[in-house]
Amino acid sequence: MTSTASAPTADATSTRIWNFSAGPAVLPEPVLRQCQHDLWDIAGSGIGILEHSHRGPVFNGVIEAAEANCRAVGTIGEEYEVLFLPGGATTQFALIPMCFLPSGQTADYVNTGVWATKAIKEARKFGTVNVAFDGTASDFDHVPADDELSCTSDAAYLHYCSNNTIYGTQFPAPPPAASDVPLIVDASSDIFSRPIDVDRHAMIYAGAQKNLGPAGMALVIIRKDLVEKTPSDLPMMFDYRLHAKKGSRLNTPPTFGIYVMGRVFEWILEQGGLAAMATKNAEKAAVVYDAIDHAGGFYRGVARPESRSAMNVTFRTPSADLDAAFLEEAATHDMSGLKGHRDAGGLRASIYNAFPKRGCQVLAEFMGDFARRKG
Amino acid sequence: MTSTASAPTADATSTRIWNFSAGPAVLPEPVLRQCQHDLWDIAGSGIGILEHSHRGPVFNGVIEAAEANCRAVGTIGEEYEVLFLPGGATTQFALIPMCFLPSGQTADYVNTGVWATKAIKEARKFGTVNVAFDGTASDFDHVPADDELSCTSDAAYLHYCSNNTIYGTQFPAPPPAASDVPLIVDASSDIFSRPIDVDRHAMIYAGAQKNLGPAGMALVIIRKDLVEKTPSDLPMMFDYRLHAKKGSRLNTPPTFGIYVMGRVFEWILEQGGLAAMATKNAEKAAVVYDAIDHAGGFYRGVARPESRSAMNVTFRTPSADLDAAFLEEAATHDMSGLKGHRDAGGLRASIYNAFPKRGCQVLAEFMGDFARRKG
Repeated sequence: MTSTASAPTADATSTRIWNFSAGPAVLPEPVLRQCQHDLWDIAGSGIGILEHSHRGPVFNGVIEAAEANCRAVGTIGEEYEVLFLPGGATTQFALIPMCFLPSGQTADYVNTGVWATKAIKEARKFGTVNVAFDGTASDFDHVPADDELSCTSDAAYLHYCSNNTIYGTQFPAPPPAASDVPLIVDASSDIFSRPIDVDRHAMIYAGAQKNLGPAGMALVIIRKDLVEKTPSDLPMMFDYRLHAKKGSRLNTPPTFGIYVMGRVFEWILEQGGLAAMATKNAEKAAVVYDAIDHAGGFYRGVARPESRSAMNVTFRTPSADLDAAFLEEAATHDMSGLKGHRDAGGLRASIYNAFPKRGCQVLAEFMGDFARRKG
Repeated sequence: MTSTASAPTADATSTRIWNFSAGPAVLPEPVLRQCQHDLWDIAGSGIGILEHSHRGPVFNGVIEAAEANCRAVGTIGEEYEVLFLPGGATTQFALIPMCFLPSGQTADYVNTGVWATKAIKEARKFGTVNVAFDGTASDFDHVPADDELSCTSDAAYLHYCSNNTIYGTQFPAPPPAASDVPLIVDASSDIFSRPIDVDRHAMIYAGAQKNLGPAGMALVIIRKDLVEKTPSDLPMMFDYRLHAKKGSRLNTPPTFGIYVMGRVFEWILEQGGLAAMATKNAEKAAVVYDAIDHAGGFYRGVARPESRSAMNVTFRTPSADLDAAFLEEAATHDMSGLKGHRDAGGLRASIYNAFPKRGCQVLAEFMGDFARRKG
């Protein structure tokens, strides 16, 4: 730790490496620079962002801008609440059935991987769950086609996970839900990476640490009529209605996380919004998938082509030993975070919104070179 | 927002003001400087602290050091778990009775103010509460003497709030609990401001945003035998046993908050630990209380002298109009955050660990001058 307040701040020239981490993950560098500034003194207030009262004028401006920019990014209408809540998606796994799965009803869950499995496990603590699709048998290598779903006609809601970080699969479009069944999506790993059909969803939630900001909190976009189904007499912190009524300031909220998210929303708008993000993300993903597909069979993609994720590219070399050699060599080329999740093995490149295309090209070049030498 | 990655970082010479905010509150400036650096690149890794995997080697080092330094600061033995949990103290208000107030038992709560009242309200959603002391009648102007407490002999636990931010009262020592009754303290606003008798407590918890770090999370120090009373089949995020088993990494934790807390613990050790903090805090508080007591009766302290807090100094001028004039003038002297909480009115100077003694002197000089001019 520096021992005086006048110690030097970050060296603007220090080298950053290619960070393929699945989350917490790379953030936009202009946002990080602004954070550095605002930690010491935000908006000329003489007080840093961590130190401002959550009820003072400076933070009022921060949270109001964050919500407005979130609505602008996602084209989110006034019929939805935008909430910034402590705890990541795992907290939502419990709150959703606690609030929206009444006794006597069934909730439909689409099981496309580890996180969906955890969501199902939590829901079963509160009520009856129908697993509308179970990807276990195919090692979660794809998301279901519409005709693979077995939904309940009068389900309390239909829950799915739009992008599966571990297996590298992504829904090309939301699954079909009956018009009177609320559709709920865990979008933790692909929120705001492409246009999202908000109106088809009753609730969109995401842990912050992949595409939005610091770990430990969630963004919750929830239709007001769903909020109204929250039972009364819940503990305060589990009560969507109360969070909505208090504008995410029921208690002292994660102020820094809200601030960073707000900056990220602003950055997305500067990039051209979600359509531009989608184009850029598709280009980035194509660079890496091309490297997989055009290495003479040296690499094997984990996900079925029609379910491939633009956020997490999962692949394998011909052997676990070569996977290990790949990781070791990649590290010497300033590439980090390429190891696959322990449940899937192999390799994984996470290339969220803030990950630069140039890094995908560096990876692809390395992959080609590695395949030529080891193939 | 800056638009390029090479934008300038914080100006080391920019002026910071005296921040008397009750929370989020001032943090140590050397910690802020280190945060600025590490946001861009921590430990020469080429990746910022917000962007590191919570399971990677760099964050392993961060959380292990944070726990070790927390244990060193508080002299916390291995019979206690040290947990870093999302959500502030308000989340703990619910989890404590959910986990430790079984049907058929009674929990004792000491009501010394707004936060204790909220804790009681949450506990009543889960079981039977005995209010062992109710400060409502005396406008929460003091904490109870031992003979003002009416405890249940076989209580599930006894809960108190060690420092009451709003009224400016503080327990000089923990209330007496029967040896077999677990003593639980909400120490949100005075944790690590003075030596704490850990062994007398089964659980010590604190929202981070006053003496520890960023808002939106809590530090929980909890004896292992209490952890073992957690019921099974709770939702994962509400289960102390699971959090303990997973070393606060049951899911992606609030990594930045853990990092900042760790730096604050390190800073406390550098200051000489809790004994030195207590000496410094007592000196700081004396400066402001002396200004109250030696202004010819112009100022009136809100708390009874024997219950005065060293963290939050609450006082009034002779009228609401003069309170308003005081705030307005103070702002022109670079002093912020002196308005009392809406439930208590008047004025309040919050002078947590990181608030410098010089700022207390500046306030005291201003108070003397203001009283001479307006008295």
